[in-house]
This record gives sequence, structure tokens and C-alpha cells, in this order.
Amino acid sequence: MRLRIIFTLAVLLAGHSLPRTACAQETSRIKTLAKRTVPVPAGVSEELRGLIASRPLFPNIPVPQTREEWLAVQWVWDANNAQAARDLAQKLGATWESMEVAGVPCFLVTPKNIGQRFQQRWLVHLHGGAFVFHGGEGCIREALWVADACQARVLSIDYRRPPVHPFPAAIEDTVAVWQAVIKRQEADATALFGTSAGGNLTLATTLKLQHIGLPLPGALFAGTPATDLEKIGDTWYTLEGLDPLGRYEGIIRGCFEAYVPSKDFSDALVSPVRGDLRNFPPTILLSGTRDLLLSDTVRMHRALRQAQVDAELHVYEGQSHGDYAAGTAVAAPESEDAQREIFQFFDKHLAD
Amino acid sequence: MRLRIIFTLAVLLAGHSLPRTACAQETSRIKTLAKRTVPVPAGVSEELRGLIASRPLFPNIPVPQTREEWLAVQWVWDANNAQAARDLAQKLGATWESMEVAGVPCFLVTPKNIGQRFQQRWLVHLHGGAFVFHGGEGCIREALWVADACQARVLSIDYRRPPVHPFPAAIEDTVAVWQAVIKRQEADATALFGTSAGGNLTLATTLKLQHIGLPLPGALFAGTPATDLEKIGDTWYTLEGLDPLGRYEGIIRGCFEAYVPSKDFSDALVSPVRGDLRNFPPTILLSGTRDLLLSDTVRMHRALRQAQVDAELHVYEGQSHGDYAAGTAVAAPESEDAQREIFQFFDKHLAD
Repeated sequence: MRLRIIFTLAVLLAGHSLPRTACAQETSRIKTLAKRTVPVPAGVSEELRGLIASRPLFPNIPVPQTREEWLAVQWVWDANNAQAARDLAQKLGATWESMEVAGVPCFLVTPKNIGQRFQQRWLVHLHGGAFVFHGGEGCIREALWVADACQARVLSIDYRRPPVHPFPAAIEDTVAVWQAVIKRQEADATALFGTSAGGNLTLATTLKLQHIGLPLPGALFAGTPATDLEKIGDTWYTLEGLDPLGRYEGIIRGCFEAYVPSKDFSDALVSPVRGDLRNFPPTILLSGTRDLLLSDTVRMHRALRQAQVDAELHVYEGQSHGDYAAGTAVAAPESEDAQREIFQFFDKHLAD
Repeated sequence: MRLRIIFTLAVLLAGHSLPRTACAQETSRIKTLAKRTVPVPAGVSEELRGLIASRPLFPNIPVPQTREEWLAVQWVWDANNAQAARDLAQKLGATWESMEVAGVPCFLVTPKNIGQRFQQRWLVHLHGGAFVFHGGEGCIREALWVADACQARVLSIDYRRPPVHPFPAAIEDTVAVWQAVIKRQEADATALFGTSAGGNLTLATTLKLQHIGLPLPGALFAGTPATDLEKIGDTWYTLEGLDPLGRYEGIIRGCFEAYVPSKDFSDALVSPVRGDLRNFPPTILLSGTRDLLLSDTVRMHRALRQAQVDAELHVYEGQSHGDYAAGTAVAAPESEDAQREIFQFFDKHLAD
């Protein structure tokens, strides 16, 4: 009897994964996920497990509405991040100096050791922080980490930000600095990189350089980049509640709208996954299986590959937004692994 | 007043993403996700959206307990898959013949056109189906799709399966066939590939060849491979309910236990992510953002990269387990894109 039931079930379920119909009912287009629990990922280092277990989700806070409210939050978070950056510099034995390049404030980070190939050459960095935060001295935090990975000097651009300077001010700044940098060194021997909003600006700046006919970087590193500021990426939905970043609605969408006050995110300089990528330089992309921007990252990777660009994707187990750079805060073997990938990629693709 | 509240909140939340403590309370190690709804992904092709919208989750069915129950389900699902394979062969204008190689039943698939480089050379395929299903004629289904992508003949191995032949029978068969194949063509000019359990067997066979000192394939394609048969991968938890494959518990775990009756999954030939991968050939891995085996895939990618293997990862937006091969059932541009990646990878890495 049991055998007969199983046999019947098997017949009924045969080919279950084939599409029933090409045009499903609208009601079936939404999946409902039941409440459930998810343990800390088992397949990651003890250090990363500790990090993942210990941090709460970012709470829903009121989105600043006025220029003064934005500036208040910006001031606090910038200051906090700057302290973290100074701590990291000390830990790594790195130094930095502020300078103006093409009238734009920048920081030049010098790691403890400088590799043979980078004695005279800088990498160029665009910091993250949802276009609004983590400027000032704090913008060197990721720059320090990559400078350490590549044993290279990194020029980090403290680009103009909302609420005072919305899009396209940041890109005007990055292009101006790029023009100055490539007067002192070869473009194809220079990398451009950044994480999150910095990844967006890395890609958008390259699009802009392409538009105006300037030489492009020799390689890009776009870490978990925001590549479509609309809520298109599937992982905004599927991973909500797992990534401490929070959710699209609220402060994140608020930052995107502060960056683009028209709220029209269709411009490729705002949502670079929509751009013409045919002449893009080799690009390395990093993300994680719990990253709200995993979809933004893999969509960009696919778009680059379809444009026949030499683009490489690395996705880290159990990691949320930007966790590969956890090494800016704690020791984590996965973070050293990411440093190695970034170094190898630049080493392979930058001209000598 | 509102400004003061926002300022205070900003201060309280500054540095929220830094670890609070390296040693969190055990209770915080589990995240509870609220019930929610997830729309069909917007950033995929219309064809793929139709597929995703139309298919239900695989239901919980009783796990077969006896040899007769397993054989009954196997018989039905094998037959169903064989029909799908025949339909695909007709659609692609491909032919196939059954043959014995080293005493092991195989199918040789010949695509409509054969590329210049593959006039005399076969690719070698290991079918999926959780180690238990999709044998017999149906095993050529993915072989047809890759043969079409690469314009190459594909030899698909109908390896022995549970319940009658558990581990390591399948690997004995694949190694025996490999030994015969490399008598007629160069190993480094021959690719080995498979999806899901077939991806597992692709990796496990390569480990076994390495152990016994036989020449290794020139390139591997491991599609969403089961690389750790324990429930270690984070996406078993995070994506449950999104991937029509269902869940680890039930029929999937049942199949793994039918394959390894001792239930000891620690052997690297069973869970190849645990193996010594230092001499592995270049490997391309495919997965999707809704794939229950995304973690198994990215963990393998990391393990290969750490072993300094030339391993490439491609993750498709919104796709569940094996969806990149949707082209075996429906037209989908993403599936053509995957075919292009596989072809380019083999073309680049296989010796002439």
C-alpha cells in the first residue's frame, strides 16, 4: 500500500520543475515565506561567526527631512568613521596626508611597505556610505585596507556629497581628479575602486570618462556596488532581515533620493548597470550570500560579461554588505583572502 | 526637537556595524525572520519570470524507505526525464547512441554541428539527480545542452546508483570510463562536467584521479554542485521556500543517505569541498541568487581559489537550483548566456 502511494506521488510529481504554463496567474507571482529562524553560518571562520552573531540589524530610524537633519547625522557618522580609520592606520602602520587635487580634497594613503611596481603610482579610491556618509578623514578607511593589500599608495577622493551637493557633483569631482592623476601616471597602469556607493561611483565615473573620451583605468574593483538605485535587485527582498544593513525602504532609499533629488534613477550615471559597458576595463566584483546588494553585484557582473568585459565575481559565504572588508575592523581570514584577490587582479591587469 | 532626536539617534547608532563583542550570547546566534512576501524577480528576462512565477515548491513527500520504494520512484522519474531528453534532442537536431565504455553504459551525444576543434574529441558528462535519479536515457539531457553550446560530442556516463549501488560505485564507474577515454584522446584536451550531484561527481572524480595518479581533465564545469552533503551551506537556510527544489530535510537528505548509507559525509570523495584541491584544473562554477546550493557553490569557488586554481564563478539573478540550464526545457536568454560562458571557458582552457 505504501509502495503504491509513493509510486502514485512520484507519477504526479514527475517533471514538477518544468513550467506549467508560460503565463501564470498574477496571484502566483508573489511567494509567501513563513516565519523562520536562521543560524549563524557554519561554513565561515570563527572570527566571522563572532562578528555575524554579535551585531544587530540596523534599526528603522527616521529619515532626515531637512538639510540640517542630514548634516547632523552626517557629522556624527563621519566623525565616528574617521576615528575607526585613524585606529586602522595605526594598526597597519600606514600614514596619510590631505591634499588638493584639481581643487578637490583628497587623502593620500601610504602603506607601511610599497611594492616595487607601485613606487611611483597611486591607486584611486572612492569611499562608500550611501553617497551621503563617510566623507572627510574617514574616507581613507577602505583606502588603508586596499593600500595594505596591494602595497600601493592610494589616493582617496573626498568627493562632494548631498544634502549640499547632489548628483552629479561627486562624479564631476572624481573625473576632475582622474584627469589630474593621469597627467602624472598612465591611465592603464592606474586602478579605480570603491565599495557600495563607492562601487557605484567607480562604475559611473568610468562610464563618464568613456562618454567624454578620456583614458579609462587599467582595472576596476567594484565591491558590492549599488548598480541600480531602484529596488530591482531580488536580494533586496530575499535577504531582508539577514543583512545588518537593514532594508531598502527608509534611510537607504532616503540617501538615494538625497543623491538624486529628482528621484529618477534611470540615468546610467546613477544606475550604471543600465549603461553601455562595451569598453570597460577588467573589473573585479565582490559580494556575499547575505548581501542585500548581491543582486546588484551579480547583475553588473552579467552585464559586463555580456559586453565581453573581463569581469571576475567573488561571493563570500554568509557575508553581508561589505563584510569582505571586515578586516578594517577585526581580523578575519576571509578578509585577507579578499585582499589577496584584489591584489592579484590589479597585479594581473594593470599595465607596468 | 526633531533635529535633536535625530542627532541623538545618530550618535547612538554610530558604528553600529562594528562588532559589539567577539563572544556573543548563544541566543543571538539565531536570527528570526518574519513572515513576508517576495515578488518574482524584476531583473530577469520575461521568459525566466514566466518560469519562476509558474512553478510550485516541491512538496514534502514521504522519503522512500525500502529498496522497492526507491526503485519505484526512480523508475517513474527516470522515465519522465528520458522523455524530456528525447524532446530536447529533437528540438536541437542532435542524435545519440548508447555504448559501453570500460563496461559502463554510456550515451554519446552528437550535436547538429561539430566545431573544428572537436572533430575527434569528446567532452565527458556526469548527470545530476541527487545521485539517485535521472539515469538511463534521461542522463543525456544536460549533455545535449552542453553539446549544443560547445558544438562538441559529449559522452554521458550512466553511472551506477543507489539504492542498489551506493558510494563509491558511481566514482568507480566514472574513473573507469575516464581511463578508457584518455586512451583515445589527451586528458588535458578533455573536459569533465555536470550539474548538482553531477557537479559533485565531477569534483569527486577529479579528486579520485588525483589520488590514483591518473591524468586530470583539462577543465571542469561544476554547475551548482553539492559540495558538502552535510547541511553546512548557509543558503540551505536563507533561501528555503524560494527555490522549488524544496529543502534539505526530506527527499534530498534521503537521497544523500541512500548514496552514503553510513551517513558519514566527511570523506572528501563525498563532500569535495573538504578535499585537497591544489592540482585541480581550471573550473567554472554556475549558480543563482535563489539557489539552495549557492553556498555549496561559492564555498567550492573559495576553496579552489585558495588552492590557487583558476576558478571562475557566475551567479545568475533570481535563479534557483540548476535554472541556468532552463534552456533544456524553455527558451531563456540567461540560458544562452550560460552556454556561452561554458563554451568560452572550455575553449580557453582545453588543450588543442
